[in-house]
Amino acid sequence: MTDGVWVIGGGVIGSLFAAHLSRVAEVTLLCRRPEHAAAVAENGIRISGRADFVGRPEASIDPAGLADAGLVIVATKANDVEAAAAQLEGSLGAGTVMTVQNGLGAEQVVRSHGAWPQLSAVTFMSGTKLADDHVEYVLDTPTWLAPYEDARFDVAESTAALIVESGLKAEAMPDLEPARWSKLIFNATVNGVAALTGLPHDHHFAELERPTDLGHLVRGLMEEGTRIAGAAGISLREDPWEMNVLATQRGSRHYPSMLEDVEARRPTEVDFITGALVRAAERLGVGAPLLTAVYRLVKGREASYL
Amino acid sequence: MTDGVWVIGGGVIGSLFAAHLSRVAEVTLLCRRPEHAAAVAENGIRISGRADFVGRPEASIDPAGLADAGLVIVATKANDVEAAAAQLEGSLGAGTVMTVQNGLGAEQVVRSHGAWPQLSAVTFMSGTKLADDHVEYVLDTPTWLAPYEDARFDVAESTAALIVESGLKAEAMPDLEPARWSKLIFNATVNGVAALTGLPHDHHFAELERPTDLGHLVRGLMEEGTRIAGAAGISLREDPWEMNVLATQRGSRHYPSMLEDVEARRPTEVDFITGALVRAAERLGVGAPLLTAVYRLVKGREASYL
Repeated sequence: MTDGVWVIGGGVIGSLFAAHLSRVAEVTLLCRRPEHAAAVAENGIRISGRADFVGRPEASIDPAGLADAGLVIVATKANDVEAAAAQLEGSLGAGTVMTVQNGLGAEQVVRSHGAWPQLSAVTFMSGTKLADDHVEYVLDTPTWLAPYEDARFDVAESTAALIVESGLKAEAMPDLEPARWSKLIFNATVNGVAALTGLPHDHHFAELERPTDLGHLVRGLMEEGTRIAGAAGISLREDPWEMNVLATQRGSRHYPSMLEDVEARRPTEVDFITGALVRAAERLGVGAPLLTAVYRLVKGREASYL
Repeated sequence: MTDGVWVIGGGVIGSLFAAHLSRVAEVTLLCRRPEHAAAVAENGIRISGRADFVGRPEASIDPAGLADAGLVIVATKANDVEAAAAQLEGSLGAGTVMTVQNGLGAEQVVRSHGAWPQLSAVTFMSGTKLADDHVEYVLDTPTWLAPYEDARFDVAESTAALIVESGLKAEAMPDLEPARWSKLIFNATVNGVAALTGLPHDHHFAELERPTDLGHLVRGLMEEGTRIAGAAGISLREDPWEMNVLATQRGSRHYPSMLEDVEARRPTEVDFITGALVRAAERLGVGAPLLTAVYRLVKGREASYL
């Protein structure tokens, strides 16, 4: 881990990693837009909210320096992993690649471009991007890491240690699936329902008083997801409905990314999140009528942009 | 039917009735807003599209003249029938009241305010209100009428004849339920899916090629509705899925009213349409998971206005 760290993608998660890690390692943020790289090179990345400092990663739009990277964190949206992995192919040397996307499937996309050691991660941290060089750090919840395929567990451990040293929360575990599926079911439901209703993740998501209350639907979606996980042989690390109740009791008004996407009329990550669960259900022969309905409605919403 | 006709509510349907009927009867349009009544009193109601003329009904915000009305058409939104019926109570003499709302339940609301003879109607005509005194008449499809409770069939027949004489399409039938439920299932599905996706009623609603296509969901919703109708002992007059395929094959880009409502952040009629079907399903012990999901999502969308 003494070789440099590269972070691909300067959204909320990528910026949080790049800014924090720049305090304990040589970090380069690989951006798509030149003005984004220029802003970070000039001003650093200001973190406010849960932390308060200016991180000073290098920033570039040129992947050439990847050759010497020891760790590459692919922090793009799920839709952009293919392009990021294509950049790695032919550029990255012996480094380890860590994916941290919502949903399922990013690891396989990266693997299809090279034989690097890989780490799977899911992150629960969240924030709001206020500018290319400024992220408000909202939830300081952890990132969980595990080796993917034949990667070594000690690489997951040393990566987690580096992230912790940088001021973020992280934990290495041998098997990511119980955590990943908990988050997948949570996200498939909360992101989909938020995108369709226009509601942030607030108290409506846990209400069960009247027959029309949204909590009934949220719970039904999460029960379907839990049955799919069971059929896939996964014991969930956390119960998604309890995650939902806890978050909304704490007065959450979190704006799920899929709601931000539909309001900005951008493609969403629904294919990788709700869609991943629906495809798993079909593969495993488990019924998922509500998740399938939400998936098709969000796809319809995307079709309405045209 | 020689006594005057009053139309309560000057939306698309009320304006189409008032303008057309004013050519063959004494018609008064009862408005809520004084400026609406003033515009109609001064300019009449211009009809363009399927017809091209200026109707000259009287217009008022004062229900006093209802005492002498022979026929009252309650053409408000479903949410406003209660207020309209309260206006009738104490004002209307021996006239007949015809309700023409989407969904179920308007007749009972009117009945709870008085013992007048009532007609049930559903209308398939549609249009776009361009101004208080101008409606674009889009679909010249018929209005179907039937006696409600102990009203006489010949009153439905003479009312249908008057509507036909005025230039609109109408048909009297002894039993409205087969037609009403066909439209209810169609509307519960198409309005709900349009409101949630932002799509007008277009080709997406009949697509069945890819697993994510919206047609699968639309068909599933309509199948649930058809099962509910069956349990209620109703033989549908038309198959809702065939209505959907036909309309979209004709290149429909119809903007369902529930989509207009959510875009304007207004209360929708979902309680009377999708909600009416869901309550019927519960009463009859029929499963309706998809209709219930759509109902809760639209209620969530309404909650997001606040």
